[in-house]
Amino acid sequence: MKFEGSHILSVNQFDRESIERVFDVANQMVPYAKRQKRTTVLEGAILGNLFFEPSTRTRVSFGTAFNLLGGEVRETTGMSNSALAKGESLYDTARVLSGYSDIITMRHPDSGSVAEFSQGSRVPVINGGDGANEHPTQALLDLYTIQKELLYHGGNIDGLHIAMMGDLKFGRTVHSLSKLLCLFKNIRFTLISPKELAMPDSILSAIADAGHRYTISETIEGNFDADICYQTRVQEERFGSQEEANLYRGKFRLNQQIYTKHFQSKTVIMHPLPRDSRTEANELDNDLNMNPNLAIFRQTDNGVLVRMALFALTLGVEDIVSKFDKEVHWYSGH
Amino acid sequence: MKFEGSHILSVNQFDRESIERVFDVANQMVPYAKRQKRTTVLEGAILGNLFFEPSTRTRVSFGTAFNLLGGEVRETTGMSNSALAKGESLYDTARVLSGYSDIITMRHPDSGSVAEFSQGSRVPVINGGDGANEHPTQALLDLYTIQKELLYHGGNIDGLHIAMMGDLKFGRTVHSLSKLLCLFKNIRFTLISPKELAMPDSILSAIADAGHRYTISETIEGNFDADICYQTRVQEERFGSQEEANLYRGKFRLNQQIYTKHFQSKTVIMHPLPRDSRTEANELDNDLNMNPNLAIFRQTDNGVLVRMALFALTLGVEDIVSKFDKEVHWYSGH
Amino acid sequence: MKFEGSHILSVNQFDRESIERVFDVANQMVPYAKRQKRTTVLEGAILGNLFFEPSTRTRVSFGTAFNLLGGEVRETTGMSNSALAKGESLYDTARVLSGYSDIITMRHPDSGSVAEFSQGSRVPVINGGDGANEHPTQALLDLYTIQKELLYHGGNIDGLHIAMMGDLKFGRTVHSLSKLLCLFKNIRFTLISPKELAMPDSILSAIADAGHRYTISETIEGNFDADICYQTRVQEERFGSQEEANLYRGKFRLNQQIYTKHFQSKTVIMHPLPRDSRTEANELDNDLNMNPNLAIFRQTDNGVLVRMALFALTLGVEDIVSKFDKEVHWYSGH
Repeated sequence: MKFEGSHILSVNQFDRESIERVFDVANQMVPYAKRQKRTTVLEGAILGNLFFEPSTRTRVSFGTAFNLLGGEVRETTGMSNSALAKGESLYDTARVLSGYSDIITMRHPDSGSVAEFSQGSRVPVINGGDGANEHPTQALLDLYTIQKELLYHGGNIDGLHIAMMGDLKFGRTVHSLSKLLCLFKNIRFTLISPKELAMPDSILSAIADAGHRYTISETIEGNFDADICYQTRVQEERFGSQEEANLYRGKFRLNQQIYTKHFQSKTVIMHPLPRDSRTEANELDNDLNMNPNLAIFRQTDNGVLVRMALFALTLGVEDIVSKFDKEVHWYSGH
Repeated sequence: MKFEGSHILSVNQFDRESIERVFDVANQMVPYAKRQKRTTVLEGAILGNLFFEPSTRTRVSFGTAFNLLGGEVRETTGMSNSALAKGESLYDTARVLSGYSDIITMRHPDSGSVAEFSQGSRVPVINGGDGANEHPTQALLDLYTIQKELLYHGGNIDGLHIAMMGDLKFGRTVHSLSKLLCLFKNIRFTLISPKELAMPDSILSAIADAGHRYTISETIEGNFDADICYQTRVQEERFGSQEEANLYRGKFRLNQQIYTKHFQSKTVIMHPLPRDSRTEANELDNDLNMNPNLAIFRQTDNGVLVRMALFALTLGVEDIVSKFDKEVHWYSGH
Repeated sequence: MKFEGSHILSVNQFDRESIERVFDVANQMVPYAKRQKRTTVLEGAILGNLFFEPSTRTRVSFGTAFNLLGGEVRETTGMSNSALAKGESLYDTARVLSGYSDIITMRHPDSGSVAEFSQGSRVPVINGGDGANEHPTQALLDLYTIQKELLYHGGNIDGLHIAMMGDLKFGRTVHSLSKLLCLFKNIRFTLISPKELAMPDSILSAIADAGHRYTISETIEGNFDADICYQTRVQEERFGSQEEANLYRGKFRLNQQIYTKHFQSKTVIMHPLPRDSRTEANELDNDLNMNPNLAIFRQTDNGVLVRMALFALTLGVEDIVSKFDKEVHWYSGH
């Protein structure tokens, strides 16, 4: 995969080699994210950060990643007052707005909108989430986190056993992550969800076609020797009826007691965030906050590294980042 | 006209010499906008980009123009929660906010508001649109585009024949552009609009007083040897009744067939954008997208150049921009 | 008080020495705010400017202060679409968002929210207002203004006579300012308000306990030899009934005539802003705008200096700011 000048629209664009390239560059970004030094490689470059649908953390993560490479950020949030709302085509919007920046990150509520937009853009476009369709940087940061966490325990992605829990039907993140995992070897999926929210057949076929194994379960029972437990939120409005929802309420949550009972002591806990902290819906209990295997905040930190890597690669500066190193003078909590 | 430290509030401030000065400086900005090099002449300067009324493209265009000169942008959008909404005067708002930046760009829904605001500001204020009143940077970018397009065909503004179509009554852009054109020599206006949306008498008088000619028409008929066709959107709610609106529906649209039938093969097509891409209202059809004379996206690109020029002139750095040149290291689609 | 790496959450954190430290550093910031020179000491640092409740001037003031030190700003405004609204805890939000910046400024409608947030943050957090609770940078800029204005008249804070007028019950600013003044010597408070909006007993006790004097009054009568008149807005909805409100309407306003009649010619007029400029509610009349003792716009200017000082101190760069000095090339109205 050629990165320079390319759009990043879908996980389907990636092969194993290109994923490893992203992760190598992300690894190089660690000292900048930790404020051990800084780079000005993109000084003078402008990111157009277009969030036609709000998402604070994804938006700020992209902006911060670009700032950490030395660039500037021009931001747009919301759609109610935009030209799109007045009937302008995505093509026109792209033709105009791509004149204002060197690269564009875009979130939009409609499936396919970012790809359509990219056809009018003269600068690279990175998909920051287009409705139920794709959110490739989330999938890449999830996979990057898995690799880092496994490496810490002496393992690697090949041979991984991952448990996915909760809403596997509507959870965009688990679909994309599954597709990326299919590019590796000998993966085992344990898929735990209510029947109504089971993993779609298309993903199951992809897993099987790639030669991997999966087990489907409707309850957390027995012992899972999973390396990773990827938890998601079950939204009750996804069920056909409240009766159905009540049936499953609380059955797919995770807390320290459930973790100890069903998982290995080294199983890494992941979640795409935000998690609901209100009592009735807490799919991931706060009593796990002190568990060293809770990787949810390492995931968001890794998101900055992966987004820096994608910016560097699409703008063709990945090999010269350190040529623009400067010292950091200020207090850093990182 | 003295630019340094001045407010840019109205097209009425400009004479021919000052317009040519803006365009000369805008021409110097081309290599920066094309990312052939970059300048840091305004590094450390802050733009206060105050959009009390939303306008994504104008807001981002100002911000990008300031970034391309090396400056920082602090932005405010919307008015519902602002101090203005709590009864603060524009004078107070200006006194306070002008303490936070080196120059201010402002859009506001009320006519005259930006001029009133400028009286309390200690830094230069550029009008980014004050309701039905003025939007001088749009008029300047339109005129700059006309000059560039005509030059490409070996002509210049003096002697221009321009056709203006659509809503000439409420279209702020065609009024301001007409005023600027009056400063040049021997201009011919062909004004095509429904009777209800005809060009106001004040503009017609200004055209006549300046010694130019105009023709008024209610239909696109015959052959126009216009150099420029400036199209605008006819909003149906502008008519007295739906019956009136129905009468005119589709009569002021432009597509490749109508263009070929009524215009010269070199007539340049302009539009203030956004254009409506929904079927019933498409005043400028997508089948013109491949027409090399469709200048609508060159207009928005030129907007960045003109705004860079105005920033450089009002901050008095127009002659030293290139002293702060740096190389560009990254991939550029421009 | 140790500043480097610390959160700034409450005026209660400050002793007299630490206040004087902030003011010393704020004084050093004057040439940068006046654009006589600029510094790049925080070049590459990122401020997370989180305004979950809108406040244009506080938000922009923080952002500008950070830019003036050379840093970048990533901003979030509003809460309706945030993860907090979807049930995420402040702790989680802080853990995530603190990964995206070097320091955070935060406003939030709920009392105690910023302190709670700070517990999850790995970078320093500065409270930009948490509901009725605290807004420490406002109190510091008020006190800094008092010191500067008194110095101009040859005085200092010890021995100050301050009149506070208007709504002393719900006015967060007068409470915090009173607490800070308690750290100085021999302060005299004249507290003028409707009975229903009198200064709370807790503040009166703090004043008395610190050995200062106060007088309570329900009308502006006689001559005040106050050095400072700190005016606030009386919002009619604060009263128990409209009859009660009508009783007081217009009795706590200040205009040039009332000022001349009741105050010394050198009494400095302050107000937290915004002031209401609509006729019926103008607590501070526009006819005072030419009064040289009207310090309200010097207050907001001082806010930038105080916020620059707090950024420099919490990030530990206060002693090296001038090592990164650069020239200013552009026109400045400051």
